[in-house]
Amino acid sequence: MREAYHVELDNLADHLASMCGQVAEAMEQATQALLNSDLKLAEQVISNDANIDDARADCEEKAYALLALQAPVATDLRIVVAALHAAESLERMGDLALHVAKAARRRHPDPVLPEPVRAAFARMGEVDVRLARQAEEVIRTKDVEAARSIEADDDEVDDIHRSLFSVIMDKEWPHGMAAAVDVTLLGRFYERYADHAVSVARRIVFVVTGRMPGYNNSDI
Amino acid sequence: MREAYHVELDNLADHLASMCGQVAEAMEQATQALLNSDLKLAEQVISNDANIDDARADCEEKAYALLALQAPVATDLRIVVAALHAAESLERMGDLALHVAKAARRRHPDPVLPEPVRAAFARMGEVDVRLARQAEEVIRTKDVEAARSIEADDDEVDDIHRSLFSVIMDKEWPHGMAAAVDVTLLGRFYERYADHAVSVARRIVFVVTGRMPGYNNSDI
Repeated sequence: MREAYHVELDNLADHLASMCGQVAEAMEQATQALLNSDLKLAEQVISNDANIDDARADCEEKAYALLALQAPVATDLRIVVAALHAAESLERMGDLALHVAKAARRRHPDPVLPEPVRAAFARMGEVDVRLARQAEEVIRTKDVEAARSIEADDDEVDDIHRSLFSVIMDKEWPHGMAAAVDVTLLGRFYERYADHAVSVARRIVFVVTGRMPGYNNSDI
Repeated sequence: MREAYHVELDNLADHLASMCGQVAEAMEQATQALLNSDLKLAEQVISNDANIDDARADCEEKAYALLALQAPVATDLRIVVAALHAAESLERMGDLALHVAKAARRRHPDPVLPEPVRAAFARMGEVDVRLARQAEEVIRTKDVEAARSIEADDDEVDDIHRSLFSVIMDKEWPHGMAAAVDVTLLGRFYERYADHAVSVARRIVFVVTGRMPGYNNSDI
């Protein structure tokens, strides 16, 4: 049983890694669509979201098969459940990228973002994508140390997100209320994406190693 | 095995029902705190959130015990996993109520909501709380028909949420940017709470009956 279990668990982890790659690409393209008012790219992110939903369903099927055929107990059982939760978070990250792409489409051909916040979104997009790619890397290389840096990146997104509010609330903000509402919601989407990426990375470390070094185990 | 399985599954469902009651109360109190600038009530929601997190951990332990001791397969296995996902959504609903309470505390003694949006938030709070209580009711009574009305209520929250934007973007909005940002984010919290409640209700119908009448099974 042990060997079959580990082969199937590796297979499940590979699927999670692919999902990380998919949601990284979705956020990368959604951010480009947002910054460049690129309708074609926005449409691509929107239509690709179904693939991410399918990938999550595949991960669930693999997890069900593991649970049903191998009936893992103790830590092994928790690892499979952690993989299920990671797949759910990854699907949600895909949804958040989808929301960004939809905002770009809704305002097209007008830009969604006024000039004073463009750099902040470019940077949040960059960090969000890196977070998802790092989570993928942790599975591919089993390099748990790489997972540690993910929390620091999440802090950076939180800081940028907070700084957006001072830009919007500046008395000089001349871009009107609709732009302020867009910036508020979009900022929230990038922040939630980063939160989910941290949660995914923690769970992936657990899936790959069965241990959670440097993390609070209650967060699994 | 079958009888022990069903006793333990009922036990797990009871725990989910209690969580529904807890998150309903959290959103009810958070909304009161928001509408009445009631700092004491806001503090209570904030300190009670740890109980909701504990309740989720309890549900997870019960689900792990079921998986490890009963090794359910096929539909039974999917039911336990649906319960795990429901517990995760319920914890998130508690977090959203917490965000509302924190907004009330942050602005205290000033009101967070300008007059023109108070009624909308009172109504969204009412519907959100009813959604969570209906989910509880579905478990207690096994009345699956009750679950059907949940989707209609969710549509009402979506409609109110959308209507907020026209209020904020009205050229006459005299309440400034900080209030607009608060209203935008708070509206999003109430909408997400309702979305999670629908997802919980669907999963609970599945936990209680093993079937998903009237729903799209791909959403389980």
